[in-house]
Amino acid sequence: MARKKIAVFFGEQSFEHDISILTGLQAIKVIDQSKFEVFPVYIDLNRNWWTGNGLLNQDNYPLAVKQPKDITKVKFCLGDGVGYLQPVSGGIFAAKKPIYFDAAFLAFHGDFGETGAFQGLMESAGIPYTGCRMLAANVFMNKVTTKQLCRTLGIPVLPEVVLNRPENKAFFDVKDITKDVNLPFPLCVKPLHLGSSIAVSKVTTKEELDSAVIKVFALDNQAIVEPFVENLEEYNVSVTRIFGEPSCSAIERPAKKNAILDFADKYKAGGKGKGVKGAKSGNADIRGLVSLSREYNPKELTKEQREKILSWAKTLFVAMDGNGAPRIDFLCNTKTGELWLGEVNPIPGSFAFYLWENAEPKVNFTKLLTAIIEEAFAEAGKKSLAYGTLKDNRIFEDK
Amino acid sequence: MARKKIAVFFGEQSFEHDISILTGLQAIKVIDQSKFEVFPVYIDLNRNWWTGNGLLNQDNYPLAVKQPKDITKVKFCLGDGVGYLQPVSGGIFAAKKPIYFDAAFLAFHGDFGETGAFQGLMESAGIPYTGCRMLAANVFMNKVTTKQLCRTLGIPVLPEVVLNRPENKAFFDVKDITKDVNLPFPLCVKPLHLGSSIAVSKVTTKEELDSAVIKVFALDNQAIVEPFVENLEEYNVSVTRIFGEPSCSAIERPAKKNAILDFADKYKAGGKGKGVKGAKSGNADIRGLVSLSREYNPKELTKEQREKILSWAKTLFVAMDGNGAPRIDFLCNTKTGELWLGEVNPIPGSFAFYLWENAEPKVNFTKLLTAIIEEAFAEAGKKSLAYGTLKDNRIFEDK
Repeated sequence: MARKKIAVFFGEQSFEHDISILTGLQAIKVIDQSKFEVFPVYIDLNRNWWTGNGLLNQDNYPLAVKQPKDITKVKFCLGDGVGYLQPVSGGIFAAKKPIYFDAAFLAFHGDFGETGAFQGLMESAGIPYTGCRMLAANVFMNKVTTKQLCRTLGIPVLPEVVLNRPENKAFFDVKDITKDVNLPFPLCVKPLHLGSSIAVSKVTTKEELDSAVIKVFALDNQAIVEPFVENLEEYNVSVTRIFGEPSCSAIERPAKKNAILDFADKYKAGGKGKGVKGAKSGNADIRGLVSLSREYNPKELTKEQREKILSWAKTLFVAMDGNGAPRIDFLCNTKTGELWLGEVNPIPGSFAFYLWENAEPKVNFTKLLTAIIEEAFAEAGKKSLAYGTLKDNRIFEDK
Repeated sequence: MARKKIAVFFGEQSFEHDISILTGLQAIKVIDQSKFEVFPVYIDLNRNWWTGNGLLNQDNYPLAVKQPKDITKVKFCLGDGVGYLQPVSGGIFAAKKPIYFDAAFLAFHGDFGETGAFQGLMESAGIPYTGCRMLAANVFMNKVTTKQLCRTLGIPVLPEVVLNRPENKAFFDVKDITKDVNLPFPLCVKPLHLGSSIAVSKVTTKEELDSAVIKVFALDNQAIVEPFVENLEEYNVSVTRIFGEPSCSAIERPAKKNAILDFADKYKAGGKGKGVKGAKSGNADIRGLVSLSREYNPKELTKEQREKILSWAKTLFVAMDGNGAPRIDFLCNTKTGELWLGEVNPIPGSFAFYLWENAEPKVNFTKLLTAIIEEAFAEAGKKSLAYGTLKDNRIFEDK
């Protein structure tokens, strides 16, 4: 049987563009090449599309104005119920063959590939794709709709106030916007749509609140304000049904205690420097990004807390008919033992392989990605309608 | 100032394909040509894409194998942060100029243009588009997520049982699937995702339930079973914020009492015949489709009922950050006076212009479409992120 051809997509106009490059390149290394023929497709910050083996070399990022010969600019084209990549020719005689593929493997973080738009593109082109469908991606990448859903399902979440950036106004008085925040300090301010702790602030005064909201409005048109959880500990778990019934990975307590992991800490191993240590030399293995000391199935969790986390993760995933293996983050006040759902990451950094490698039973990273790809084909088949019956509802008469 | 170029999209692989053609052609006639340069783009049932003036002639549907010269096959291409239509050339010397446009006007019903996928395609291409964003389209086109949202918001909905078509099974025993339906007869069975009363049945026995579920599973992978509302009357209202604050149209009581409007009744004016009366002769003005006797702001509604309908419609619309002018359908038991939210139509047939023409103040159809188009541009601008700051979160160093 011929191997299925899988395009691994990464990049896009996202605040998590660079980390998506790492997740994409990592996936290409890990996917089982005996089962799948894999190739990279990179969408840069300006939304140019690229393919070619040169994309596999980290030294080539960010792409230079003059690309190496093994990186080709492409367009994505659809019509005839299919989509394909068309190499961009220099002239009319240089037309190159279209590149077809059997499924899209999504290694995006944030816009527009984790949030539903790329999913819509693949649905429009009739191409199977990995991970959550549009609805789940849309709901999970919006912190407010996720909370609304949790409330319906009886999963505890923190109260919130949503603040809207004024439309059609270049200048505005932030005090007008924050005056109705009726929650007691300390508070936590976040962008409503972005992940990865970008522009997340703890604020203890009205002045800090105002400046945190301005910071969010540079990135997102909506901010969300919540109580800051005292004695905070985070617990993360991944959930999937690629192995049959919904099942959970190990629960992880990420490294940093009592503080918000900011983006720099999460992804810039070197700290204040501009680049990831080793990125330039081509050695920035993404495993380095998850090397912050973590603890799996931490002993401080009571059996009851553990069961709550696992059951809530599954309930939420099932309610949205989830796909892939999202990572669900919970917040805990370690003094009171209270738990709240924090957020859902439809495509977690490096597919949260470390959670699955520590699961019971252990799931190997390659096996995880194989199952995620196989689910893409199953999903595409599942919703295929009985197109023969489309003709039953026609108004126009056949000629 | 040059007129903005607006592509009006219609058709697609949808159970409401043909009615979408009528809505699309009607919109092209009605859009203000002094403000906008309009042209048609038709996606046929096999997902071939077409443009050209020949599409404006109803006599050309369904398209013949050999198209008239004024209908051109196109591909949609994206990359470079833009999307455009590329006429499909017969040979490499026949390459034709790409067709760019400023915004997409969506006149789809059902898959894939009312349900979020086409919206994702436009987001991926960076093209402004009319109507609901992906999230709202996805949530509203799923009857269960709409209900969950209503419950969160305190808007009454009927209880439901969701039935799943078995995966990977060509044959299955429907009795196994319906055995857990624990609602008393009579019941109403519907597809979970489709609109326009397609495959909607009233059932009074277990046998009827089973056969109605089989009927749904030919079209949709999920069925929804609800109590059948006795003494049923439907009330429809449209809601929008294209004129500023959220506002509602007239409330309409559609023609048929105490019965489910089935697809044939709604759209096939002639009744049992295959075609719309006049479709073949090119005279099937969609106004004919709304000519069933209707009543606006019906007097039997109490002030309280009226206020509930208007307030619930606005609440639901605002909660999902709705766009365009969706039509929201309510169910009423006229004996008890109880009201429930029925469903939301992000892109209602013929844009529910008749509800706006009867609104207070009256809104002219052309003015409605102008405001819907202007909102598309405003929305595209609103969420545009501060791309300069994208560079702040980079891992890879500039060379």
